[in-house]
Amino acid sequence: MSKKYTIGVDYGTQSGRAVLVDIATGEEVATAVKVYPHGVMDEYLPDGKTKLPPDWALQHPQDYIDVLSETIPTILKEANVDAEDVIGIGIDFTACTMLPIDKYGTPLCFYEELKSNPHSYVKLWKHHAAQDEANKLNKIAKERGEDFLNRYGGKISSEWLIPKIWQILNEAPEIYDKADKFIEATDWVIMQLTGVEARNSCTAGYKAIWHKQKGYPSKEFFKSLDPRLENVVSEKLSTNIYPIGSKAGEITEKYSKLTGLKVGTAVAVANVDAHVAVPAVGITDEAKMLMIMGTSTCHILLGTEEKIVPGICGVVEDGVIPGYLGYEAGQSCVGDHFEWFVENCVPASYTKEAEEKGVNIHTLLTEKASKLKVGESGLIALDWWNGNRSVLVDVDLTGMILGCTLLTKPEEIYRALIEATAYGTRMIVETFRENGVPIKELYAAGGIAEKNKLMMQIYSDVTNMEIRISGSPQAPALGSAMFAALAAGSEKGGYDSIVEAAKHMSKIKEEYFKPILENVEIYNKLYAEYKTLHDYFGRGFNDVMKRLKKIKSEAK
Amino acid sequence: MSKKYTIGVDYGTQSGRAVLVDIATGEEVATAVKVYPHGVMDEYLPDGKTKLPPDWALQHPQDYIDVLSETIPTILKEANVDAEDVIGIGIDFTACTMLPIDKYGTPLCFYEELKSNPHSYVKLWKHHAAQDEANKLNKIAKERGEDFLNRYGGKISSEWLIPKIWQILNEAPEIYDKADKFIEATDWVIMQLTGVEARNSCTAGYKAIWHKQKGYPSKEFFKSLDPRLENVVSEKLSTNIYPIGSKAGEITEKYSKLTGLKVGTAVAVANVDAHVAVPAVGITDEAKMLMIMGTSTCHILLGTEEKIVPGICGVVEDGVIPGYLGYEAGQSCVGDHFEWFVENCVPASYTKEAEEKGVNIHTLLTEKASKLKVGESGLIALDWWNGNRSVLVDVDLTGMILGCTLLTKPEEIYRALIEATAYGTRMIVETFRENGVPIKELYAAGGIAEKNKLMMQIYSDVTNMEIRISGSPQAPALGSAMFAALAAGSEKGGYDSIVEAAKHMSKIKEEYFKPILENVEIYNKLYAEYKTLHDYFGRGFNDVMKRLKKIKSEAK
Repeated sequence: MSKKYTIGVDYGTQSGRAVLVDIATGEEVATAVKVYPHGVMDEYLPDGKTKLPPDWALQHPQDYIDVLSETIPTILKEANVDAEDVIGIGIDFTACTMLPIDKYGTPLCFYEELKSNPHSYVKLWKHHAAQDEANKLNKIAKERGEDFLNRYGGKISSEWLIPKIWQILNEAPEIYDKADKFIEATDWVIMQLTGVEARNSCTAGYKAIWHKQKGYPSKEFFKSLDPRLENVVSEKLSTNIYPIGSKAGEITEKYSKLTGLKVGTAVAVANVDAHVAVPAVGITDEAKMLMIMGTSTCHILLGTEEKIVPGICGVVEDGVIPGYLGYEAGQSCVGDHFEWFVENCVPASYTKEAEEKGVNIHTLLTEKASKLKVGESGLIALDWWNGNRSVLVDVDLTGMILGCTLLTKPEEIYRALIEATAYGTRMIVETFRENGVPIKELYAAGGIAEKNKLMMQIYSDVTNMEIRISGSPQAPALGSAMFAALAAGSEKGGYDSIVEAAKHMSKIKEEYFKPILENVEIYNKLYAEYKTLHDYFGRGFNDVMKRLKKIKSEAK
Repeated sequence: MSKKYTIGVDYGTQSGRAVLVDIATGEEVATAVKVYPHGVMDEYLPDGKTKLPPDWALQHPQDYIDVLSETIPTILKEANVDAEDVIGIGIDFTACTMLPIDKYGTPLCFYEELKSNPHSYVKLWKHHAAQDEANKLNKIAKERGEDFLNRYGGKISSEWLIPKIWQILNEAPEIYDKADKFIEATDWVIMQLTGVEARNSCTAGYKAIWHKQKGYPSKEFFKSLDPRLENVVSEKLSTNIYPIGSKAGEITEKYSKLTGLKVGTAVAVANVDAHVAVPAVGITDEAKMLMIMGTSTCHILLGTEEKIVPGICGVVEDGVIPGYLGYEAGQSCVGDHFEWFVENCVPASYTKEAEEKGVNIHTLLTEKASKLKVGESGLIALDWWNGNRSVLVDVDLTGMILGCTLLTKPEEIYRALIEATAYGTRMIVETFRENGVPIKELYAAGGIAEKNKLMMQIYSDVTNMEIRISGSPQAPALGSAMFAALAAGSEKGGYDSIVEAAKHMSKIKEEYFKPILENVEIYNKLYAEYKTLHDYFGRGFNDVMKRLKKIKSEAK
């Protein structure tokens, strides 16, 4: 029997990436990347004249199709693999990235007469112009005592589906009316490939306030937001939600022609980039937390019971791995933190030294920071340069550093910022544990996790846990390929369970990080200090950060 | 009648500066500077082989004589002034800068057999190796309930006279025994010029725990430190203390030959650099606070009653201006703060921009910081990079900055550091007022005060007070020349009161800084936040800074 393959397509913010994977070994046989022709539209529409307001971020759905039509033929050709041997395809996406479509699934922005209406396009995850709607939603939900808030750490983000829909209703009621549905881009792509609408439980749960047993919020709740929203679920959404790991459908003739895949090839239910990475590192059961570390960090964890954990981003049944509760938490400023530091706080002498050594500035700072003993700098920081996502869920918190002296060096500050993000992760870990969700192992994926050994050792020492690192630099695409193998099923040469798929296809590096006892002891002391400061500034004992923000906004 | 002149000699840390002043106008007719040949000895003795331990800082007394013998003939010649018309000389010095001498006034380090004994040299103000002795002294004084502690903000500094003497006794008892006296360098120079010992009330009061009515601490107290110290006052010091503004004596024949001044020229009682600047800006009565701003800031204020003000450096009768209580307070990190910042935290792009514009980096940062509105940065800092001198008197406190975001810019941090030092000054002003010592006007002297208009405007806005700036860049030398005119007296063409001398000789710039009402209002809010953080971290509510310092010292 010939080798069998699946394809995982990972839709990022700037580009889409297709990876062809050997399902027997997880080997990534070929990869192709397509940069979105329209990129992120945050200033003008494609007409070049319609200007977008601040905080907007749009995409063009044609770009998603272009990814499929260009990358899939490329990888098949490059690997010289017969489409007969490709038994499935899965995708993952940024989320909540949503668009309005007509009853045929056509994006409204494809209509000639709507091309200059910004609300007809895809609203990208980082479209932040629905903050007013989110604030109102949270206020009303709190007043009404809506219990769904508990599942989302007490707050619905302006990035999520309902605030985005509500913004459309408020600002472009004609688009709201014209839209047959609002749909996640990840579900829309699956709809294109298969011709059927089979929405996924991950975005429904994490972004659309849907619950497997309880469904969406009540009609009364939506009515209390705006009478026109009363029937938004039945009129504009879908209750047809499939658990992650299901088969959505099969490649249609149209998409067979476009991609070169065979008609009838299995298509997995859509997924989300962070969440789909979980099985790619081999996690298929509870108590193992994956940190996907980039500009920010996303923490995903499986559990067997639904617990209310204050300050997390969400808990969703079947949201990550079928049969488990998927918990998500996050830190809003990780890689961004270090970028800010090197752009604003690193002296010319260091820039020069890095140039002379032919290394980048992060490498130089990491080298210098590695030579410091734990606690030697006397510094401690609160990692809130971009607010706090978990467990305080407060965008108005700001960064702090304490312990500076006239001898404080840049590498000491750099290390203190790394440590602060590690304390933030420990705070998340402890909050899960205190609320009955066990965590026994840590995993890490993403650029930082692969490159920065100092950082991983610090995380290991601070949490007193071993940390295993993703074996694939494209863990999301690999994860999507695994779900594709699941969608195909053993009859077609795939797998019938994610455990089975993970056994063959997941990848983890041999090298892993172990806590160093003497460091753990000192970090325990430092974490105790972090916790005191975290609670003092973050839990209302001294709201100086918020008052400063208020003074700041008045000054501007 | 021909014009009359006096000379002021200002002994700094690296050099001595003599200024010839026209006493009718205060015009500085000629100036000469002599860099100390031995500089600050903090690594080796002049023998080049005796290594000094950490925290030591010594000087060589011959350097002080060289200043006199070189600079005075130079300025007389340069101004073409007849020595007949120079009616007096006064000096000021760093303090406590002390040395052991024999009964003829000869420094012990002049003895051939003691040249390799570090304890025979001058201990400079910033010799910090008597910290153990200072700690013990403070502990014992506190246990015994010694009321002198109240006059010094609760703590005697390791920089002051008694800890330095005690260190000599502990580490070199042979020097202690051999010393006929321990004396401030400022008094020793006057002793050389006049041949008589006439110690000044300023260093006695601020550095030697002397009080005009109560004298030195008791024999019992000294005995409790060390039985050998029981009679230190009668054996090694002097109770012959003259108020600032007195005449110490007259130029001897020997020093006439050395300097070119006439035998019999009046010599003022010695003085201290910061304190002597007070009349130079025209302050001769109460409620006007002078800030001498350099690497650190020294605050001097006159009062009419002795009040206990917690956390100040000292209160001394006749310590600054005869007939007044002189209060001193301090901030240990001002110019040093900004130096640290530009050396460690300013990115290469800014360094390049400053080079391209042909300005120094402070100028560039100040320019950018000037464009910010009050409160616009959202930042607040605690100015404790070098501990806190007043009003917390705690070297173990460290710096903090709060309010950072991913958009925080270097000039915003720079401005926040300036503002933090202004809040520190306001804290000192308010502490004086709350304890019954009025402050109605502010004056500033020193390089920063003259150069940095943004900083002075911020200080004015933060304190809501007008600030007047010294008209002379060498205020201490001018002040010494004023006291020289006082020592000469009206009979010799000088003045009989410091008020009279100040009327003619003091100098203040015409331009002064006025608080801007809208800034004052915002700074009132920001200062309230500073105060809360100041007390939280500085008054024992959260001793995180001290615990971090402990962890730091254990790590090293």
